This record gives sequence, C-alpha cells and structure tokens, in this order.
Amino acid sequence: MSSLLQERVKCASLLKKIVKDARELVPLFKHGDYIGMSGFTGVGYPKVVPQALADHVEKNQLQGQLKFNLFVGASLGAEVEDRWAKLDMIDRRYPHQVGKNIQKGINEGRIRFSDQHLSMFPQNLAYGFYTREASNQKSPINYAIIEVTEIKEDGSLILAASVGATPEIIQKADKIILEVNTALPSFDGIHDIYEVVDPPHRKPLMIEKVQDRIGTPSLKIDMSKVIAIVESNHPDNTGGNTPEDETSKQIAKNLTEFLMSEVDAKRLPKELLPLQSGIGNIANAVISGMVDSPFQNLTVFTEVLQDCFLTLFEAGKLDFASATSVRLSNQGFDKFYADWENYKKKIVLRPQSISNAPELIRRLGVIAMNTPVEIDIYGHANSTMVNGSRMINGLGGSGDFLRNGKLSIMHTPSVRPSKNDPIGITCIVPMVTHVDHTEHDLDVFVTEYGYADMRGLCPRDRARVVIEKCAHPEYRPILLDYYETCLKKCLKAGSAHEPHDLGVVFKMYQNLQEQGTMRINKWW
Amino acid sequence: MSSLLQERVKCASLLKKIVKDARELVPLFKHGDYIGMSGFTGVGYPKVVPQALADHVEKNQLQGQLKFNLFVGASLGAEVEDRWAKLDMIDRRYPHQVGKNIQKGINEGRIRFSDQHLSMFPQNLAYGFYTREASNQKSPINYAIIEVTEIKEDGSLILAASVGATPEIIQKADKIILEVNTALPSFDGIHDIYEVVDPPHRKPLMIEKVQDRIGTPSLKIDMSKVIAIVESNHPDNTGGNTPEDETSKQIAKNLTEFLMSEVDAKRLPKELLPLQSGIGNIANAVISGMVDSPFQNLTVFTEVLQDCFLTLFEAGKLDFASATSVRLSNQGFDKFYADWENYKKKIVLRPQSISNAPELIRRLGVIAMNTPVEIDIYGHANSTMVNGSRMINGLGGSGDFLRNGKLSIMHTPSVRPSKNDPIGITCIVPMVTHVDHTEHDLDVFVTEYGYADMRGLCPRDRARVVIEKCAHPEYRPILLDYYETCLKKCLKAGSAHEPHDLGVVFKMYQNLQEQGTMRINKWW
Repeated sequence: MSSLLQERVKCASLLKKIVKDARELVPLFKHGDYIGMSGFTGVGYPKVVPQALADHVEKNQLQGQLKFNLFVGASLGAEVEDRWAKLDMIDRRYPHQVGKNIQKGINEGRIRFSDQHLSMFPQNLAYGFYTREASNQKSPINYAIIEVTEIKEDGSLILAASVGATPEIIQKADKIILEVNTALPSFDGIHDIYEVVDPPHRKPLMIEKVQDRIGTPSLKIDMSKVIAIVESNHPDNTGGNTPEDETSKQIAKNLTEFLMSEVDAKRLPKELLPLQSGIGNIANAVISGMVDSPFQNLTVFTEVLQDCFLTLFEAGKLDFASATSVRLSNQGFDKFYADWENYKKKIVLRPQSISNAPELIRRLGVIAMNTPVEIDIYGHANSTMVNGSRMINGLGGSGDFLRNGKLSIMHTPSVRPSKNDPIGITCIVPMVTHVDHTEHDLDVFVTEYGYADMRGLCPRDRARVVIEKCAHPEYRPILLDYYETCLKKCLKAGSAHEPHDLGVVFKMYQNLQEQGTMRINKWW
Repeated sequence: MSSLLQERVKCASLLKKIVKDARELVPLFKHGDYIGMSGFTGVGYPKVVPQALADHVEKNQLQGQLKFNLFVGASLGAEVEDRWAKLDMIDRRYPHQVGKNIQKGINEGRIRFSDQHLSMFPQNLAYGFYTREASNQKSPINYAIIEVTEIKEDGSLILAASVGATPEIIQKADKIILEVNTALPSFDGIHDIYEVVDPPHRKPLMIEKVQDRIGTPSLKIDMSKVIAIVESNHPDNTGGNTPEDETSKQIAKNLTEFLMSEVDAKRLPKELLPLQSGIGNIANAVISGMVDSPFQNLTVFTEVLQDCFLTLFEAGKLDFASATSVRLSNQGFDKFYADWENYKKKIVLRPQSISNAPELIRRLGVIAMNTPVEIDIYGHANSTMVNGSRMINGLGGSGDFLRNGKLSIMHTPSVRPSKNDPIGITCIVPMVTHVDHTEHDLDVFVTEYGYADMRGLCPRDRARVVIEKCAHPEYRPILLDYYETCLKKCLKAGSAHEPHDLGVVFKMYQNLQEQGTMRINKWW
C-alpha cells in the first residue's frame, strides 16, 4: 500500500478492504448488472475499476456479452464512458452523456439512453423508477463505483471534483467500491453534502444565498457495504477549453448589453442575480466578457464551473460560486489547487439535486444562460437532437434552470456551416424539430446580431422580434415569408394564435439533406 | 348603502369610498389601461364594474376604442371575459382564458394572448416583465378590480372563492376598486395569504404538509390606493359539471389500477401522495372513482377544487385539500356553504404562486394528472393548440405540476370524433403539433385501453409501449407502421435515438383536413 493511500484512508476498519489490483474485482461483475458511478461533466469519476473492466472485455473479446445499466449524475471521462460504449458494454444509460462512440451507440440503437432533467435523475433513481424490472433485487443498484479523495476516521467520504448523484447512488447501492485518487489533493471542505429525503417527509432546502451551507463536508455511508478500496492516480481527463471566436464574443457583448438594460430598468440589482451558465465557447465568452463589464460582486449558482469562472474570480468580480462540479482544464486545475485555501472559501460543491433544484433556482432568481441546437420564431428551443432524431448529449440541467430562473436566456450563433454552405444551417427556424424548452419557459434569445426580448409578447409579436433581431440577414426574408404567409392563411382559417403550415414547416431540413443548405427558394 | 354591505365593510375609514352605482366609475378608464382583476377558473372575479364598462362600450358603440391589457390569475366568468372579448375590449391577455369569443379573438389576431405557467405569471407580473413598455408609469397596473367577501377593521381583505394572483395584482396596482359580494357568505378563515418577496430576498416556503399554513386569512393592502368600493350581488357563474361518460370511467379505472400497482411495488404509500387533478370529465371521473377505491386518508394539493372533491370529502376518503380556487357548480356551492364550518377546516385556498409552486409540488411529491389535446409516441404532450396554431385555453398549471410532481400522468381518450368519422382523430400521434410538456417531464399515459408506463424507457421502448397500451386498435397498425419504418430508415442513417421522418410526420393532419379522418392508408 502506498504511503499516500494510507494517509488518505483514515478509517482503520476500512484499511482491510484495500485491494492492490483492480483486476481482482473484475469477476464480480455480471452481464446486466446495474452500476452507479460518481462523476459529473467528466470530473470526479472512477478511473481504475471501469478501465480494468474495459481491458477485460477487450482482451477476451466480450463485446456485447458484458453489458451494464449505467447510472451516473451526468457525463464521465471519455476513457471510461466512450470506451465502454465502443466495447458495447452499455445497455441503458441515464441521464446524460458525452462522447463520439456513446452517441454512435445510442443513435445506432445499441444503447438505450433516456435524457432527464439533472435535478430529477437522482430522485427518480431513488424512487426506483429506472429499476422497475429489478424491484425484486435487494437494492436497485448492484455496485456503486465512487471516486474519493479521502476517507475520514468515521468512514465518511470526501468526494473529488464533483458531487453529482453520488449521495443517491451510494444510498441505493448494494455494494460500494471506492477509488481513492491520490493524484489529486484532498477536497476536504469544499463539499456541502445534504441528503434529500423522499416525500412525504421531504424538508425545505434552507438555502437563501448562494454561499449558504445546509449539509456536511463528507458523505456518510454504511461501511458494511464497502467491498473494496483501490488506489487511483489518474487525474480527470478534461483536456483544454473550447476557444472563443468572434461570433461568441459578439453574442456575449449583446447579452451583456441586455443585462445592463435590465439594471437600468431596475428589473435587476446592479450586482445582478446569481448566474448560471452552460458549457461551450459562447458560455465561456459570456462569463469571460463579465471581466470587462461594469458588474461587481457577482455570484454564481450553476451546475458546472469552468475555467472562465476562475478568470472572473481572479478579476475580483466574482464573490462566490455554487455548483455540483468543477470541470477545469489541466492548467485550470493547477491554478485551482495552487490557490486551494482561497477557492475553498469561495466555492461550494453540492449534490445535483441541490445545485439544480427548482426550489432554489426560483428562490434565488437565477439568470439562466444556455446554448441550444436551434430555436424557433415562437420561442421554443431544441437542446438535444438533430432532425428530431439524432441525439447529441442530452438535456443536462438546461430545463432545471430555464424553467425556473428569473431570466431564461438562450444564446446561439444565428447560423452554422453545412458541408457546402458556410451559412447552410440557420439556428432560427419556423418550428424546432425537437422541443426541450417551450415558449412558456424562455425569455430572451441572443445571437451575434442582437437580442430578442420575448417577455410578455404573444407568439405573433415574438416571431417578428426574433426574426428581426436574431436571424442571419440571409435567412430573415425566408423566415419572414414563412411567417407572413402562414399568418394570412391562419387569419383566414381563424387559427392565427401561432401561425403555422404543417405541410411545409420542416421544408428547410429536407432542402438541407438534398441541397446542402437551408436557404430555400420558396415555401409553397 | 345596504345593511348587508355595511356589515361586510368593517373598516370605518373605507366606508366613505363606497360608490352606489358602478357606472360612476366608467369615466376613469382609458383606452390602453393596464387592468388587473381577481379571479381564477371563473370564480372570485369582479362582476359589477367590468359589466358596467362592457355596457358602456356596447351602448356607445365603442368596440375596439376602449381596449385594455388584462391581467388575471387565470380565467374569469364568461359574462366578463367573453363579453369583453366580444366587444373587442381586450388587447393583451395573460396567462389563461376560457370562452368561445375570447378564443375567437385570439385566433383571429385581435387579442394578443400569451399563456404562461400559472405559478410564474404572478412573479413575472411583479417583475414588470409584462409591462416593460409602461415602465415610466408609477405602477405597472393602473387599476386592480377585486372581488372580496369582507373588509376587516384594519382594511385588510377577505377574498372570495379564489386567491389566484390577487396579492401580486394588488401590490402592483396604482388604484384599487373593491367589489364586496354580499350574495356570498364571508370566506373568512379559508384563505392563507402569503406574500412572495422578489429575489434576492425570497424565503423558503415553509409548507411540509398540504394543511400547513404560512400566512394570514386576510390580504393586507395600502388603504390609500382604494378609490372605490361597490356592492355586488351576483354569484359566480360556474354552471354545471361536465358529465362522466363510459370512456372517462374506463380511463379512471386504468389510472386507479396503475396507482394500486405503485402501492404494491412500495413506490407509493397506501394513502398515496397529494393529488393534483385538472379540469374536465376525465378528471372528474378519476377523482370520483377514488370513492370506490381502497385508498384512505387521501390529500389534495391542486389548483382548483371541483364538485368531485366534495364527493370525496363526503365519502370520508379525503382528509385535506389545498388549492387556489373552489370552482363548484351551483348545487356544489350550496352544499359547500351549508357545511361551511366543516369545510373551512379541511380546505385552504392559497395564492397561485404557492398552490402551483414547483418548490412545494416537488417537496410534497404530488401525483399530477392532466388531460392533453394530444400526446405522442415518444412522450410529449400538447395541452394548448390545435394544428400547432389554434389556441384553446392555454397551459394553465399543467406544466407546474407535470414537471415537478413525483408522478406525472396524462389521461385522454384514445380518439375523438371528426365531422365524418367517429374515430377520425387519434389523440396519440407520431409527433404532437405543439409541445407544452416534453418527454423529460411525463411518466405515464392513460387511455381507455390501458396505461403506458414510460419511466426509465428510452424513446424507442416508449414508442412501442405507448402504441400497444394506449392507442385505439384502429390506429395501432398505422402508428406502428410509422415507427417501424422510421426506425429502419434512422438505423441506417445512424440517427435512431428517436426515429422520425420529418417529411411525413404531420401527414395525418393533412388527411384530416382533406378527408375528415386521421386514418391514413399509407405514410410514404
């Protein structure tokens, strides 16, 4: 046993559970097992045991013969999730995923994926909704494989860079395997672990400010469930950041302008309200753009912290951040660990049932900002699928935040390139091909051309402002033609609340497939 | 002044505000005014002043020349809302409505309607989101016209059969007009009025059981805003109940069977969890069906109480009900008033920001049950629009409950008649024409043929179970043909997470328009 490991496992009675080689654990796992893992947005996930299993499948050519039901708060690192998918080791998967091979498996019908609001996943798991056919099992989850950075004297766990659904997974697991990551410092002090009890005994979440704590730094467990402890020394595999480009910078500028106008109109305080921001280059640009904004004493209530938030801390603009995961680049993690004592006071990591709780998002008045696949002229958004059929990553927490935030903002470039047209795909369409967020949930759309403030507008008024303020100039006349002609037809038919012609509404997609561009010549 | 009125207005300083004839108030109102009214699901709305305004417009042929922005918690009685619409007195309207003429006005483009989650409407009104262009006004709402049943010594108000958005409307109004309804008994003691404060100062809602009270029986107001008090003696105009038919009884039976199986599987306690039920004959049948069920000690956390809930109280099955409105038939109200002292202890009426609060619906683990316009094979629901264009009533609180409930159930007949085919319209379609509730939000669909339990299923598995368990037998092969063929095509294209063909997906609607039935012969 390494001295590092011994230092981290402070509970004497658990020392005897240490297993030298993860390969010893491989025979435990059976085809069809229900496996829960720690991890969220590719950090805090177990690295050693899942890879030993993958090695075993690869070496013995067991592809498709050792498939699992895989439950994780959100996405894992590619070397686990994507490799498992490539080796056909995943039957069912909830509630989110990232990776080329797992997407391929889902869209080729090999992996049964269901994306869920991230706040709902842990409770539905605890309710037994995902494991109905396994209700004769003692516990809905056979094995929980959890990354920790320390085990306290009382056997409670100090998790790593994410909390996610780990408390619920641990609670519902029959057996627990712990990976103590000695390549990371102990994260003791940054977590706030609170156990959400099922109704009818659930209590109010007593958080009124982003920095409020209601739980404990460590996760208490039933020690008798722990069957093995292994050492891990692989850091989180996060790679670099998506670079900002001119378009995302312009979007960030427009969004900041909108927020400033809200402060002017006294609908927001000058320090704003807690910010939530999704992942990606626009989100990075928006948060980084805050560095040069007049805003001070900002706070963050979000699900994942990326490098841009460190930048905002360093600039003295950000007072406190609450999330369920810290997903930094390698350089970002270096900075974070180097200034650990400082960041520990300014960051709290909560379970995703808390970080994404509708109760808290609405109470705090969060400003929610996310990037969709496409949006439509009446205010619906598609966050998950191409052509209504092909899954990308899943919903994530976007619905938790957009439904409940005080301001619900979606930002996207107005166009994307197709194979043969640099502006072949318009992100603003007559009707999105999959609705993840409805017109009842969204307030403001932002593109590089401007922002459309839809609050209080009826669908007819929304359509005009979205087309005029947000669409790419090449697509404006096309969209306007659709809207104006549908309006005329629907007025005649007495059905003009939200004018549509279902016969042609998806014509642009057909054109994209056949001609490589959504720039159609005519609708009818 | 009638002795009845004098008895109800207990605040001496407000007595001088009594106006004998509502017509005296008509000159106050200007074209374009922002008017807030009490009222929710056609009860508790002002009757006298709105009708005096309508008489004025009718008599002086001012149709279209005296139009208002109308803010009400939900729908008003037909003699106000529908008459105003007929007289072209409504410019903008939020967040819900009921009535032939108001729907006509919306769909003919005269009324600018935007439907909103009922829990969000009061806060967005308070935030000033609906009155952005009036932000130079002293108050966003020019006049609040509120029905009350009593005015206490301190000037605070005892509301009537609904609370709705009245607290927020009163708070944001420049001037207040009170209608004291002396045809109703005083509702003193049934309300729990709590003022939701805007972020960043909002507090947890400290309700852990449906019967918990956190507010006061009367609504405190700034008395200096009261400009007039008029007497009203019109009861709420609610009419009778929608009768139950065989189909709705069978749906109720299937739903009860599902709930019983959940109790057996220990996913629900035997007294269930608080019930929410929408309006309509299926909802009536479901709640009435509980009388003969084995369930005891039921509780209700919903937005509106209908006659069927009284039946459940009378049967000794229901312990307590929380709502924002009591919308009973005339006979129902007679029973309710006759047993007032008893019902006052078993019913609480809250503001809609509380009755529909995501925070409470999730905490209490509400069982949400609502009827859609149509549902689709992948688990989306349309609650508001025909053909994606023609508005019916609006979303109401369905989204508040379906997103946040422990169980989210939608019940519908499998088919409806078209003009020339008794089963010409299938309520289960490949893709709904408007999405109000997403696949991420719904757990169970119920029709007269059975129930589809979609929890934990990927879209491909959902499609099969929805078609097989819920669709009408005539439509099963049609829907299965769509699904199977799309699956084949999408598997080939590597986009089979949720198989669709956008080129034909709405073909049934075209057939309905052209042939009067959705029973198509072929898709391709």
